[in-house]
Amino acid sequence: MGLWFCEFGNPNLKLCSRVKETLHSENTGLQKLAIMDTYEFGRALVLDGAVQTTSRHEFIYHEMITHVPIYTHSHPEVILLMGGGDGGSIREILKHPEVRVIHLVEADRRVVEVCKEHLPATGDYLHDPQVEILYEDGVNYLPRVKDKYDVIIVNLPDPVGPAEELYGGEFSRSIYTALKGDGLFVTPMGSPFFQGDIIPRIYHNIASNFPIARMYPVFIPSYPGGIRCLTLGSKEYDPLSTLAQKTPIPTRYYTCRLHRSAFVLPRFLEEMLAGMP
Amino acid sequence: MGLWFCEFGNPNLKLCSRVKETLHSENTGLQKLAIMDTYEFGRALVLDGAVQTTSRHEFIYHEMITHVPIYTHSHPEVILLMGGGDGGSIREILKHPEVRVIHLVEADRRVVEVCKEHLPATGDYLHDPQVEILYEDGVNYLPRVKDKYDVIIVNLPDPVGPAEELYGGEFSRSIYTALKGDGLFVTPMGSPFFQGDIIPRIYHNIASNFPIARMYPVFIPSYPGGIRCLTLGSKEYDPLSTLAQKTPIPTRYYTCRLHRSAFVLPRFLEEMLAGMP
Repeated sequence: MGLWFCEFGNPNLKLCSRVKETLHSENTGLQKLAIMDTYEFGRALVLDGAVQTTSRHEFIYHEMITHVPIYTHSHPEVILLMGGGDGGSIREILKHPEVRVIHLVEADRRVVEVCKEHLPATGDYLHDPQVEILYEDGVNYLPRVKDKYDVIIVNLPDPVGPAEELYGGEFSRSIYTALKGDGLFVTPMGSPFFQGDIIPRIYHNIASNFPIARMYPVFIPSYPGGIRCLTLGSKEYDPLSTLAQKTPIPTRYYTCRLHRSAFVLPRFLEEMLAGMP
Repeated sequence: MGLWFCEFGNPNLKLCSRVKETLHSENTGLQKLAIMDTYEFGRALVLDGAVQTTSRHEFIYHEMITHVPIYTHSHPEVILLMGGGDGGSIREILKHPEVRVIHLVEADRRVVEVCKEHLPATGDYLHDPQVEILYEDGVNYLPRVKDKYDVIIVNLPDPVGPAEELYGGEFSRSIYTALKGDGLFVTPMGSPFFQGDIIPRIYHNIASNFPIARMYPVFIPSYPGGIRCLTLGSKEYDPLSTLAQKTPIPTRYYTCRLHRSAFVLPRFLEEMLAGMP
């Protein structure tokens, strides 16, 4: 049967992949970091036991967390990426010729270094000259920034345990201030099956700070929660309006038609946001 | 840690749920049948080691496999359900006041009996007087039927191993003959991650027999393949045309807006159908 790596969605559910080899494993001082080579998902970046990205399926999440906000903005030039030191979101952001500057704020330098070494399909893009990496906790960085970014992409872990604090009203206000007058951002909120109580709270925090707040689910086969909900908060551009004419980019998941349909929610998610049972 | 039930998506991937109790277990002569009570998914019907339905998530699949075809048809009166002896699809079909007759063709009588006893949220609907149950293999039943059904819903296991044969050109032609002149049907085709070679074959079989063939993915958190693709084959009604005005029904997942957006495919699925890499 060989070696298996199991990720717990919660104490009652785990998704297990058969492992070819553990390519890397260390305690970085901030977290436990491992690179597993699995038969089903290819190489996986694992932080504190949670799979962050897999080479087989990362395109789904990385395309949906980047192209949806970037295509919504009419001139996305200066981008902040919080977390995402594996480089997958960077690769997708770099496809947009309008983008001039990408700031990656990543708390753990070792994530960047190890992904450069072991996950070339994403990590190679961390070398791009358009990318400036700031090794700092995004929560400390954000309050020092004002009126700077067109688009902010929050690529942090789910709001579980201590990470929940990250996603409070304070966070949403810091993001608002760091964005330019017509800026927008996107943040994950977790699985509706595991974070069903937290998702409406985060959504309403965003909706109370931004004139436009729209949730969209992303479906990730290598994530034990199955669905991960994202919310886009925007000062001016609505992701459901006609998208600004832009250069077409090569993708494997995202299309402009899918952009629009992604926001059509199943009824139980509509009701979750409306605060109904 | 207690007792865990693990379902293999393929030999390299398994999804495991912690089990409260095994409520029932038998070999029916046709298959191994078990009802597990799990902490995460509630009660699960397990056939030959594969989870068929769970009380927590069954609404997603049962709503999407029934309401999409039924809302597409302008007068869905006589329905054939192949498989689905748990009663979940029956419950959803019964919500449509236009439906007069439901034939359930279920090979294994014990599935029906055990679901009536242990899965009341779906099994209770198997008692409905509109439902006629034929205990027979659908593959034997179908060739004897001609011009009989408005809608056929295939609720059978994924086309894996011997089940693959089920989904060949012969099957698609039998379905065509069993349908009325304006009939339509829906069938599952498996996960694009596990059955990526089979899905385009089944789809093209359907497209070569039916003037309208449209694929839509359904996302199922308790399914290790994550996404399950369905195809709707139709002689006359297009699921993307304006839906016939019908009585609104109570749902947890399906909405008419979601019906339309469900057919917007991610690019890799568009390319899978087009036969591109």
